[in-house]
Amino acid sequence: MPTPPLDALIAELPDGAVVTDPDIIAGYRQDRAADPDAGMPLAVVRPQTTEQVQATLRWASAHRVPVVPRGAGTSLSGGSTAVDGGITLSTERMREITVDPVTRTAVAQPGLFNAEVKAEAAKHGLWYPPDPSSFQICTIGGNIATNAGGLCCVKYGVTTDYVLGLQVVLADGTAVRLGGPRLKDVAGLPLTKLFVGSEGTLGVVTEVTLRLVPAQPPAATVVATFDSVRAACDSVVTITGKIRPSLMEFMDRASINAVEDQLRMGLDRSAAAMMVAASDERGGSGTADAEFMAEAFTRHGATEVFCTSDPDEGEAFAAARRFAIPAVEAKGSLLLEDVGVPLPLLADLVAGVEDLARRRDLMIAVIAHAGDGNTHPLIVFDPDDAEMAARAQRAFGEIMDLAISLGGTITGEHGVGRLKRPWLAAQIGPEAMELNRRIKAALDPDGILNPGVAY
Amino acid sequence: MPTPPLDALIAELPDGAVVTDPDIIAGYRQDRAADPDAGMPLAVVRPQTTEQVQATLRWASAHRVPVVPRGAGTSLSGGSTAVDGGITLSTERMREITVDPVTRTAVAQPGLFNAEVKAEAAKHGLWYPPDPSSFQICTIGGNIATNAGGLCCVKYGVTTDYVLGLQVVLADGTAVRLGGPRLKDVAGLPLTKLFVGSEGTLGVVTEVTLRLVPAQPPAATVVATFDSVRAACDSVVTITGKIRPSLMEFMDRASINAVEDQLRMGLDRSAAAMMVAASDERGGSGTADAEFMAEAFTRHGATEVFCTSDPDEGEAFAAARRFAIPAVEAKGSLLLEDVGVPLPLLADLVAGVEDLARRRDLMIAVIAHAGDGNTHPLIVFDPDDAEMAARAQRAFGEIMDLAISLGGTITGEHGVGRLKRPWLAAQIGPEAMELNRRIKAALDPDGILNPGVAY
Repeated sequence: MPTPPLDALIAELPDGAVVTDPDIIAGYRQDRAADPDAGMPLAVVRPQTTEQVQATLRWASAHRVPVVPRGAGTSLSGGSTAVDGGITLSTERMREITVDPVTRTAVAQPGLFNAEVKAEAAKHGLWYPPDPSSFQICTIGGNIATNAGGLCCVKYGVTTDYVLGLQVVLADGTAVRLGGPRLKDVAGLPLTKLFVGSEGTLGVVTEVTLRLVPAQPPAATVVATFDSVRAACDSVVTITGKIRPSLMEFMDRASINAVEDQLRMGLDRSAAAMMVAASDERGGSGTADAEFMAEAFTRHGATEVFCTSDPDEGEAFAAARRFAIPAVEAKGSLLLEDVGVPLPLLADLVAGVEDLARRRDLMIAVIAHAGDGNTHPLIVFDPDDAEMAARAQRAFGEIMDLAISLGGTITGEHGVGRLKRPWLAAQIGPEAMELNRRIKAALDPDGILNPGVAY
Repeated sequence: MPTPPLDALIAELPDGAVVTDPDIIAGYRQDRAADPDAGMPLAVVRPQTTEQVQATLRWASAHRVPVVPRGAGTSLSGGSTAVDGGITLSTERMREITVDPVTRTAVAQPGLFNAEVKAEAAKHGLWYPPDPSSFQICTIGGNIATNAGGLCCVKYGVTTDYVLGLQVVLADGTAVRLGGPRLKDVAGLPLTKLFVGSEGTLGVVTEVTLRLVPAQPPAATVVATFDSVRAACDSVVTITGKIRPSLMEFMDRASINAVEDQLRMGLDRSAAAMMVAASDERGGSGTADAEFMAEAFTRHGATEVFCTSDPDEGEAFAAARRFAIPAVEAKGSLLLEDVGVPLPLLADLVAGVEDLARRRDLMIAVIAHAGDGNTHPLIVFDPDDAEMAARAQRAFGEIMDLAISLGGTITGEHGVGRLKRPWLAAQIGPEAMELNRRIKAALDPDGILNPGVAY
């Protein structure tokens, strides 16, 4: 096949928007999933406006060139891994944001980091809740692509709950506005919702209207250690049936030790599990909730329970939990899971992962957004040890099989991407797969948008 | 065209499932929109199971017979108005529900009333928040079809925020399971979300998995009267920028008087507007919020402000607000609007409606879920007065034009249905219309599902 005529695209876009330098392009091949089979794109395109994205997609459609949308490349499932001969469309230059404090909305381009959106909102006393652990380095566009979650979701929901409107460019270059700064709007099919979590397979988001909420009140935090994973998990069900904590995080022994190795904050290395929970209810209720959670943890057999109403002290524990991924990564390369189950089966999932780690002779550290039943088993391996890497790969699949067998999901918030695609049908079934494909075909008949991802 | 062979369908379904008695069918022609052009269905089909819905849709697909899904027929936009020669598929016999208090979910068939879902959840100390004013007579299936809202949405969101999973039967009779009892799940396209609010045009929901939350704490309520609509509306922006009220309702003079005519509860008939607001924050925070709201109302010029921490007393005012629709209906027939705008434009919308009422010489009472910018102008007319009915119809359209001109929506929670279809394109634009149609064509290529509705 002849190389498509990039000149025509270069002529349409501003200087420097189309990058073909192989050294620079090389940096866009992989994302955080570090797929060794990542392709080599024809070019990296860095548009600044909706119109430039339209021009790129019109060109790509005309020449049937695959387009991989890319935010900051923090995908853990290979959602922005480059495709041979394709275009990687980077949103890194799309970084405008306007906050309207009266309507309590932000209109943002996709290339802003989540943390930047939060910071802009905070300038007006407002808050954008979704908080993936990577919030300082991941983009809002990527968050929309995966319907990203985070730690606060147990009370505040996920990305889709904050997206009021989108501007999207379809495969053929058509720009469509969906939704807008209206808190309730049911006019036509809920297409805004369809695009949030569509992993760049249906269109490229060029602008988002986000709902903001009043600033989060300070939280009271409880930290509890357990000598039984099951006891820790069971306490979650007890608590979330009664109150709405703003944080309900789980760490297993391996994660606790990995964090302690790095931070030396005096965590109990002998504990089987540690829970970090918080309530940001206002007035005295946060503290009352913290006390209720402390009692529940104790009733479920916690070995040590620590309560604090000092937000900084509480944040130190949340930060420790957030730090678990880099801390475990210090032990070797990671395969990062994102499996979830119905809440009461959390202990079974964690026990199953522990069992697998033993059988496969691997370190698998487990952290979890426990209040949502969403876990991140972190499989550690030495990339130079081919046999171990293969074992890790096998475990990666077996953990998804396990989640599916428990009525769970292969991905709670990272997306299917390229890495998890082989497992999707086993979870959602052939009818839902067919429905995915029908919608894809209706919106992107030539299949140029993020091919190889999801379904 | 020959009449399709109903015998084959009758043979497949249980006795009594297929109703052809014209007297009975007549009761299924209209819904609460009372469309005078409602069609006469060939039959009303009342399945009990997913399999029976599948059989119905297979038959309908084979014979290209339109199918109108119907819950309790409370649609205010003609979403379940019958189609000549079609099947009206009533979910009235699909009334099973199971609540799992551990997972905090309910699995329900679509024919249950919203109030019944709430009641089942309450038996386990749990709560299903969405609360359309018609919650005692509308079905959960209809709520899903329209992505119904209600009074508590200002804090607790709308139907889509509580739907974790669906079983849906597609036009060709295929049954598909989407989502499930998992709090976070991004595996594949967000198809569950696509079906919530699709107004029965993409499939028939036969089962829903609902997320339940801990029981709502008792609320502290504030009632304030104003001699200016604008002052009342502006106070909403002040309040919702700082706290998250659990109720923020607006009534104009006409609604206040209509309710007072019926209930004689001592409402101020001379007030231009009344706000009913509440906070259900726990501990002392609800009362503190109520005080904050009372101050804000006063600062914005409220003529009278009344606070109560007595939940029953508070509920009496919420009930008065809920009663506004039947109270206004006592004055004549209603055309019931559902337009919304970005929050800061609420006063402009209400002023515009007032102006229209004057110009068209009509009584138009306005109630609003003010915290969401979602209003229900109630246009009163005498159905025996053709000229007045025509004026009312004209005002119905002009109110939507007004909402669109303010960057608003023609429907916040009732759906487009058949009545509002002519205005949809003006709101969402040709590109989004085309996207609606592409998805419709992908899922229902023969267009048998609820033809004439929405897009």
